[in-house]
Amino acid sequence: MEQSRPLDMLNRARNNTVLVDLKNGLRYVGKLQAFDIHINVVLEEAEEHKDGELKRKLGNVFIRGDTIITISPA
Amino acid sequence: MEQSRPLDMLNRARNNTVLVDLKNGLRYVGKLQAFDIHINVVLEEAEEHKDGELKRKLGNVFIRGDTIITISPA
Amino acid sequence: MEQSRPLDMLNRARNNTVLVDLKNGLRYVGKLQAFDIHINVVLEEAEEHKDGELKRKLGNVFIRGDTIITISPA
Amino acid sequence: MEQSRPLDMLNRARNNTVLVDLKNGLRYVGKLQAFDIHINVVLEEAEEHKDGELKRKLGNVFIRGDTIITISPA
Amino acid sequence: MEQSRPLDMLNRARNNTVLVDLKNGLRYVGKLQAFDIHINVVLEEAEEHKDGELKRKLGNVFIRGDTIITISPA
Amino acid sequence: MEQSRPLDMLNRARNNTVLVDLKNGLRYVGKLQAFDIHINVVLEEAEEHKDGELKRKLGNVFIRGDTIITISPA
Amino acid sequence: MEQSRPLDMLNRARNNTVLVDLKNGLRYVGKLQAFDIHINVVLEEAEEHKDGELKRKLGNVFIRGDTIITISPA
Repeated sequence: MEQSRPLDMLNRARNNTVLVDLKNGLRYVGKLQAFDIHINVVLEEAEEHKDGELKRKLGNVFIRGDTIITISPA
Repeated sequence: MEQSRPLDMLNRARNNTVLVDLKNGLRYVGKLQAFDIHINVVLEEAEEHKDGELKRKLGNVFIRGDTIITISPA
Repeated sequence: MEQSRPLDMLNRARNNTVLVDLKNGLRYVGKLQAFDIHINVVLEEAEEHKDGELKRKLGNVFIRGDTIITISPA
Repeated sequence: MEQSRPLDMLNRARNNTVLVDLKNGLRYVGKLQAFDIHINVVLEEAEEHKDGELKRKLGNVFIRGDTIITISPA
Repeated sequence: MEQSRPLDMLNRARNNTVLVDLKNGLRYVGKLQAFDIHINVVLEEAEEHKDGELKRKLGNVFIRGDTIITISPA
Repeated sequence: MEQSRPLDMLNRARNNTVLVDLKNGLRYVGKLQAFDIHINVVLEEAEEHKDGELKRKLGNVFIRGDTIITISPA
Repeated sequence: MEQSRPLDMLNRARNNTVLVDLKNGLRYVGKLQAFDIHINVVLEEAEEHKDGELKRKLGNVFIRGDTIITISPA
């Protein structure tokens, strides 16, 4: 049996809503449209949250991979 | 169907106004003229904002990729 | 006798519960589903702990390798 | 039409006065003599500013790329 | 005479007890089981110390190399 | 005409006195003996300054490139 | 005449006592036994100093290169 790799999970999450938590405390919630090996990520219909509060609604957002801590399905 | 990559979103945003949020809290708003795989970015007719206030108007500005958190269409 | 490498330990820990401690003080506890050479990690049935308290239950979680300090079997 | 890249802007700025803003809050103003792909930069007839005040006049200055946030024509 | 390299010392320390001091002030003490060129390290029968006090006993622990300051035989 | 590169300036500064300013606020003043593409630097007859005060006289000093902000001829 | 490189200085310092100053304020003093291109360093008969005070005597110590600011002959 072939062993799974971390990017397989991101692949399965495509077009689904994910939570992206950043090193600066911000959380982005949106539909995972794209990612790459640097874990650069693009979300659609994204929301920016801080301390549990909605701060901004964004259409699409590109998030630079080196700012990300975790990505998890909503 | 071919899967989209994060830089595709930046490509579609060329010549459109984007918001670029930096790790130091600054936000640059301007027309996306150029970017590369390091996410180095050049904006035209750029404005620098801090805490929601306009601080500087710049013609062109080169922003080093490793200082960027997010890029989103305005 | 061939000498062991650090990723051998992670390989033996697959499908077992591990503790993942991050630079920001968070701890994730879950079943190690996948990892790669950057030490990007995916946990199943994961829990997020802070200062010894359970903060969140997550299904799967992708953790970016550069945020990790230690990984140890539970 | 070929698409422009971020270093094209720096190329056009050669021999012109630029503002270089650093992560530590310093600003260097001078004539852009040279740069490379790491965004290492050399300015001629450079001035060092802090909080809007002139701190030092330098002849030439080499600035290491990883300390730079933005470069913009004066 | 061939000149010694830093990893030679780690090789000689295999299966011996070492102290691993981290950037965040934690110290791990355990038997050096494995390391690689990134200085990722695995210790057996490891203890976690903080400010000279034992905090945790761990079986095995994987320590990500970029969090390490020094490694020294006990 | 061939365009100049940042390391050309460092080459011209060889055997001349330079100021090397570091991210931690220290300044080293000495004769530039050697440098490489990582901007690792060796100074001869070096002095260490902090807040404008001489702290140490050193013979030779090796300075790791990633700690450097600027290098300028004295 | 061939131009000297930074590692040449470290080569000449082999088997001599050096001071290694770290980003976290610690200083290690010991005989330079080995180094590599990452500036990972091994000292023999090493001492750890903080604020001018001896904190620990160590036999050998491996110091990860990315924690080092300067290396200078004692």
